[in-house]
Amino acid sequence: MAIRIGIVGYGNLGRGVECAVRQNADMTLAAVLTRRDPKQMTILTEGVPVVRQDDWADYADAIDVMILCGGSATDLPTMTPAFAAHFNVVDSFDTHAKIPEHFAAVDAAARAGSHVALISAGWDPGLFSLNRVYASSILPEGKHYTFWGKGVSQGHSDAIRRIDGVKDARQYTIPVEAALAAARSGDNPELTTRQMHTRECFVVAEDGVDEAGRQAIEDAIVTMPNYFADYDTTVHFITEEELQRDHSGIPHGGFVIRSGKTGWEAENTAVVEYGLTLDSNPEFTAGVLAACARAVHRFAQDGSVGCKSMLDVPPAYLSPLDPQTLRARML
Amino acid sequence: MAIRIGIVGYGNLGRGVECAVRQNADMTLAAVLTRRDPKQMTILTEGVPVVRQDDWADYADAIDVMILCGGSATDLPTMTPAFAAHFNVVDSFDTHAKIPEHFAAVDAAARAGSHVALISAGWDPGLFSLNRVYASSILPEGKHYTFWGKGVSQGHSDAIRRIDGVKDARQYTIPVEAALAAARSGDNPELTTRQMHTRECFVVAEDGVDEAGRQAIEDAIVTMPNYFADYDTTVHFITEEELQRDHSGIPHGGFVIRSGKTGWEAENTAVVEYGLTLDSNPEFTAGVLAACARAVHRFAQDGSVGCKSMLDVPPAYLSPLDPQTLRARML
Repeated sequence: MAIRIGIVGYGNLGRGVECAVRQNADMTLAAVLTRRDPKQMTILTEGVPVVRQDDWADYADAIDVMILCGGSATDLPTMTPAFAAHFNVVDSFDTHAKIPEHFAAVDAAARAGSHVALISAGWDPGLFSLNRVYASSILPEGKHYTFWGKGVSQGHSDAIRRIDGVKDARQYTIPVEAALAAARSGDNPELTTRQMHTRECFVVAEDGVDEAGRQAIEDAIVTMPNYFADYDTTVHFITEEELQRDHSGIPHGGFVIRSGKTGWEAENTAVVEYGLTLDSNPEFTAGVLAACARAVHRFAQDGSVGCKSMLDVPPAYLSPLDPQTLRARML
Repeated sequence: MAIRIGIVGYGNLGRGVECAVRQNADMTLAAVLTRRDPKQMTILTEGVPVVRQDDWADYADAIDVMILCGGSATDLPTMTPAFAAHFNVVDSFDTHAKIPEHFAAVDAAARAGSHVALISAGWDPGLFSLNRVYASSILPEGKHYTFWGKGVSQGHSDAIRRIDGVKDARQYTIPVEAALAAARSGDNPELTTRQMHTRECFVVAEDGVDEAGRQAIEDAIVTMPNYFADYDTTVHFITEEELQRDHSGIPHGGFVIRSGKTGWEAENTAVVEYGLTLDSNPEFTAGVLAACARAVHRFAQDGSVGCKSMLDVPPAYLSPLDPQTLRARML
């Protein structure tokens, strides 16, 4: 029987999960839950109910795993524990510094409800975390580097939009080629934030903003603490049409590189590199969430309860193939 | 208490494991077992006993995990089941086609002895297998490509050495740049064996082999079925001194690339790439074996029995860090 998936929240990520479920023959979409008015919404899949999030209890027996597609800043800290009390759940909580407290809250709720939860699925946290753990376990004498991009940072784009006189904006995070080359060299260089990434901003100014106003916007961007002040930042003013035409995609990607030493006197070098190039960040993230939902379903069938991350998942649990087939074809 | 490691077999891989154990603070080398005369052997670590393999029973209580460093062709098919009956074990069995039967034999022996075994650890099979499983689970509509090299293939070097008139030889497997670019493009091309790799051979002829003899050797190499006939192969004759000077290392590496489609109509592309660049193939493989020994020790402490592969190992089990620390630092 197919794994019955529920989606909570129907933005870019929720829609990505809908697409991912369609690509997985062992999954079926059971319902989409939303805080919006379901009557005003159309989803891509025919015949699947779109219902109010508050009516979740109606679906307690109809859904094997609920994939929570809320935001990490305000939605997931309450949403994931609340749902984990009643469903097996997967989320993509990505505020790295708050993962331990989120884990604790979700673990308590999931245990109380005898459910399985998997938090922080995606690519960072997620696949990049896996690669940091694998490579550092295999090469204990070494150093790892995480590069993001080239890709759109939603948080940084939003920060620009909050500046007076800005109508719309798109920000790209770009790894510095020289830093990538240094990380790959095996020399284990120390690299600062500024050395590893640059930030490129495409800004649409409000009508009537003059040259001085543009300069003020640019100054506000490049000096913004935490977001831009520590980076070499380039600002381009473009028209709304140009933004729509050239910058409407949500690409992303990045690299995790570990460079380590092997041998009796650490005389040899080994470099492990993992890289992603994604046309659509939310659709790829959704693919990770769907595979994690399969793992959660298997953990639940095994009788597991409580919270997990991708670090706790045997890779075979993510695959639709059975263990014998995996060993014969993939090992 | 440190994990007590035993090494069976002290060739390049066994010596690599010795180096890896030294780099891991939570491990200690308890003994090296060998089929050679222990009195004729010196190992790198001071104060560790080197003993005859037949005396394994003396170490049954002194070793937590035995790392089996025999060859896949003739040693491991009998060695791994034999040791799994009495020890927790890790091996690097790498004859892909025979993995299912090896798994079955080791599983039966390990269960009979209430031990844990992990087979086929290393990078292919091993880390490359993990990446094939992760990426295909996340991108079900796609295609994966495995490239090996640039690196020394021991099996192909040995095949050349068996040709009449050959004194010594080293063979490099080299990925074709154009094929790598095609795999990374997201176009999901079909690539033949010949398109993906070339083979470069450095041969030292026996004294007295003339021009005609060299041509005969070259012909024997490039037409050899299975090993070379399906590849574009280049043969260079060099002196013994050149071979020693320029080709005494054992570098290797490679790439696993999966290119897949995301979106409702598969309109977007995602490319996942994993790559290794290794100065020393056996030392890096040994690093994987050591991390797997840690995982096997944890499985044994959990009360697990039977045979596993890296596909069955939660990544956190490979790390010396505890789960809380991993979540806080690596996730």
